[in-house]
Amino acid sequence: MKRTSRDIRTANRYGVLRQIIARSPTSRQELAAATGLSLATVATLVGELLDLGMLTEVGFEDSAGGRPRGLVAVNASGGALIGVDIAETYVRVELFDLALNVLARAREGMCPGGTLPEQVVGHVVSAVGSVVTQAGVEGARVLGVGVSVPGQVDRETGTSEYAPNWDWHDVPLLDLLAEHIAYPLHLDNPLRACAVAELWFGAARGRGDAVVVNLGTGVGAGLVLGGGLHRGVSNSAGEWGHTTLVLDGRPCHCGDRGCVETYAGAPGIMLNLRELSPDSPLLHPEDQTATIDALARAVAAGDPVAVQAVRDTARYLGAAIANLVNLLDPEVVVLSSWVAAALGEPLLREVREAVARHALKRPLAGTEIVLSPIPTDPVCLGAATFALEGALSSAVRGPAAGGPAARRAAPAARTASAPRTDPARSRTAPPA
Amino acid sequence: MKRTSRDIRTANRYGVLRQIIARSPTSRQELAAATGLSLATVATLVGELLDLGMLTEVGFEDSAGGRPRGLVAVNASGGALIGVDIAETYVRVELFDLALNVLARAREGMCPGGTLPEQVVGHVVSAVGSVVTQAGVEGARVLGVGVSVPGQVDRETGTSEYAPNWDWHDVPLLDLLAEHIAYPLHLDNPLRACAVAELWFGAARGRGDAVVVNLGTGVGAGLVLGGGLHRGVSNSAGEWGHTTLVLDGRPCHCGDRGCVETYAGAPGIMLNLRELSPDSPLLHPEDQTATIDALARAVAAGDPVAVQAVRDTARYLGAAIANLVNLLDPEVVVLSSWVAAALGEPLLREVREAVARHALKRPLAGTEIVLSPIPTDPVCLGAATFALEGALSSAVRGPAAGGPAARRAAPAARTASAPRTDPARSRTAPPA
Repeated sequence: MKRTSRDIRTANRYGVLRQIIARSPTSRQELAAATGLSLATVATLVGELLDLGMLTEVGFEDSAGGRPRGLVAVNASGGALIGVDIAETYVRVELFDLALNVLARAREGMCPGGTLPEQVVGHVVSAVGSVVTQAGVEGARVLGVGVSVPGQVDRETGTSEYAPNWDWHDVPLLDLLAEHIAYPLHLDNPLRACAVAELWFGAARGRGDAVVVNLGTGVGAGLVLGGGLHRGVSNSAGEWGHTTLVLDGRPCHCGDRGCVETYAGAPGIMLNLRELSPDSPLLHPEDQTATIDALARAVAAGDPVAVQAVRDTARYLGAAIANLVNLLDPEVVVLSSWVAAALGEPLLREVREAVARHALKRPLAGTEIVLSPIPTDPVCLGAATFALEGALSSAVRGPAAGGPAARRAAPAARTASAPRTDPARSRTAPPA
Repeated sequence: MKRTSRDIRTANRYGVLRQIIARSPTSRQELAAATGLSLATVATLVGELLDLGMLTEVGFEDSAGGRPRGLVAVNASGGALIGVDIAETYVRVELFDLALNVLARAREGMCPGGTLPEQVVGHVVSAVGSVVTQAGVEGARVLGVGVSVPGQVDRETGTSEYAPNWDWHDVPLLDLLAEHIAYPLHLDNPLRACAVAELWFGAARGRGDAVVVNLGTGVGAGLVLGGGLHRGVSNSAGEWGHTTLVLDGRPCHCGDRGCVETYAGAPGIMLNLRELSPDSPLLHPEDQTATIDALARAVAAGDPVAVQAVRDTARYLGAAIANLVNLLDPEVVVLSSWVAAALGEPLLREVREAVARHALKRPLAGTEIVLSPIPTDPVCLGAATFALEGALSSAVRGPAAGGPAARRAAPAARTASAPRTDPARSRTAPPA
């Protein structure tokens, strides 16, 4: 999409709030210096955020010789945000305050046969109810729920268009959830959730161009370009897991062959290990998490097969990340999600070496490769950030101003403003 | 890089001029509607462009019931721009008016042994002198010269950092040219020249996200993202030719193996043909252009080997373009440069089929694949556009306001304002 002046205003609003979350309390003058915006623009945006109750005035600081400067901070208790990470084998839900501190967590496991849409919706509804109850927040204070589901999603209609691991096609996920959850709902996928988490709170903050490489059961690359999330024309950008690395290589569930995901996703890593040692005791054929954890422990213990399996994985991953470096020339590549967290520094070292063998000198010199510094589940955090962005947009646009988030948000937010003890369990939202 | 408000003003200025070049004469009201900018912003930008002599007032049109609206048009004779396409086997130079019509052309061939920097500089200087003489423009009216050289370039210092086909390393090309050419000089590479040509004048105009796939001796992808050229942190974005398509595949001159370029660049296509038919009469081992032209004629005549060679090439190209579609989710992929022009529709048909076999359904549905509609050399046109952009930036910033183009432009422009008959031949510019 082309960037309009509305997009730019929205990006500026995000930028200011991001900076305040990173460093509170702060003055308008510091914000202007940190964001590159004019003091007048910053003052307007801060005024809007104060009006919305997202910020609070917290006193003054002396300025050398000038008038004392007013200080603002995030109003952490100004509202709550919920992030939902629907993964292949579990649903994880976290409830955050407005400074994005986790106040409550819930997790439900899913067995391989239990991933029909209505079953997944049941898990989400139950876990959302749990975090609201645990945190004891009033329903009225929940500004929104961001939901991340793997695969390709249509944000406008709230539809999971294609979730390859479960073979979901055109599941109207937000409509199903809105039958039970009265808060404003926002749908996206883990690639973009992880990218936005890094952009707001992690290694991409303050960077113009960053790639957040998501290593889990599936793999993908969330793209931060020009300081904002690059979504593409149909909100499908980032499907790096389904780019060809080995023409006519391993078969992929997407129907193609040789996709990056078949070598670098958790099942691909298990295959790398099996090719090296078919009877390895590290292999738990039905349990990706157990296998990756066992692999990580074995690498730490110096097991040569495990070390070689990580090296082989890094050989594929390094070539595929070098493709991103050569094509996009980013400032930073962030390795995120549970496989990256589990394999950690040993994987990072091997990946850096492999990227250096494949990337061109000039873009390589400009690119750092790092592990995600985010200590909690980046998908929940990113999903909650989508809810925060949605709350910012709909509040400023007003409920009648259109945009899918605003349309969905307006009636749900009105309903939720009557406090209830467990809003997640009752059907109150009008159909969207 | 992050976008600052200066970047946005510059982008808006380009957007307005682009629209006026596309559709002249036009009113400020039409411009506001076409660009999505406010009428006040458009009026300011039009005022600046009128002051610079780039636009001219051309009368009024009636508006239904309102005041007559002033019309503006490009002031074609307000200045001249020169585009230089340094390719592997030739130097082509074109001189344009401000509406980007070609006024004069020159071309110099280069033999394989004649590509030392000083030899190439000699060809450029001679061809630039020729177009200025042919067009009979005064030196003072040449607003700038855009120079495109293959490989990786540092625009700030005007250096060709790495030109793989000639094994150039850190050649200070603009400094060498400035010893002979007194006009403001701007360096970039053919990927970005072709992309900016499509953005201003071709299939990417008005599009937010477009990929311009450059098929020549080398291959690459110029990226238009968010309505502007994506350069990356070290101005190296777009090296799609050196992304891995076949891990451990054909050796590439970049030192890696299996790069897209080894299958889809002109030498790669010759190899595809040779693998199919080692003694094919279509092969001119020392002449890429002759081989590609012979292949195109044979396809038109229905020769089955030629048809199969194009199909094999499209098989590689389709997988590699599907990678771009899945990763970036663009609105349009444009096939540009001389190999695309020569193989034309038959190549396009096969590429579309191959991309459809590899790309994911959702991004594929949002992406058009087209041949470049630009009838002239897109590299010269794009290079001249860089000169136009440079003239716009330095004129508005003023000569002291920094930025590499402005720094280079200011002394050269001052020198050039004293008319000379053949400024390209005389050494007048102070060292940059």
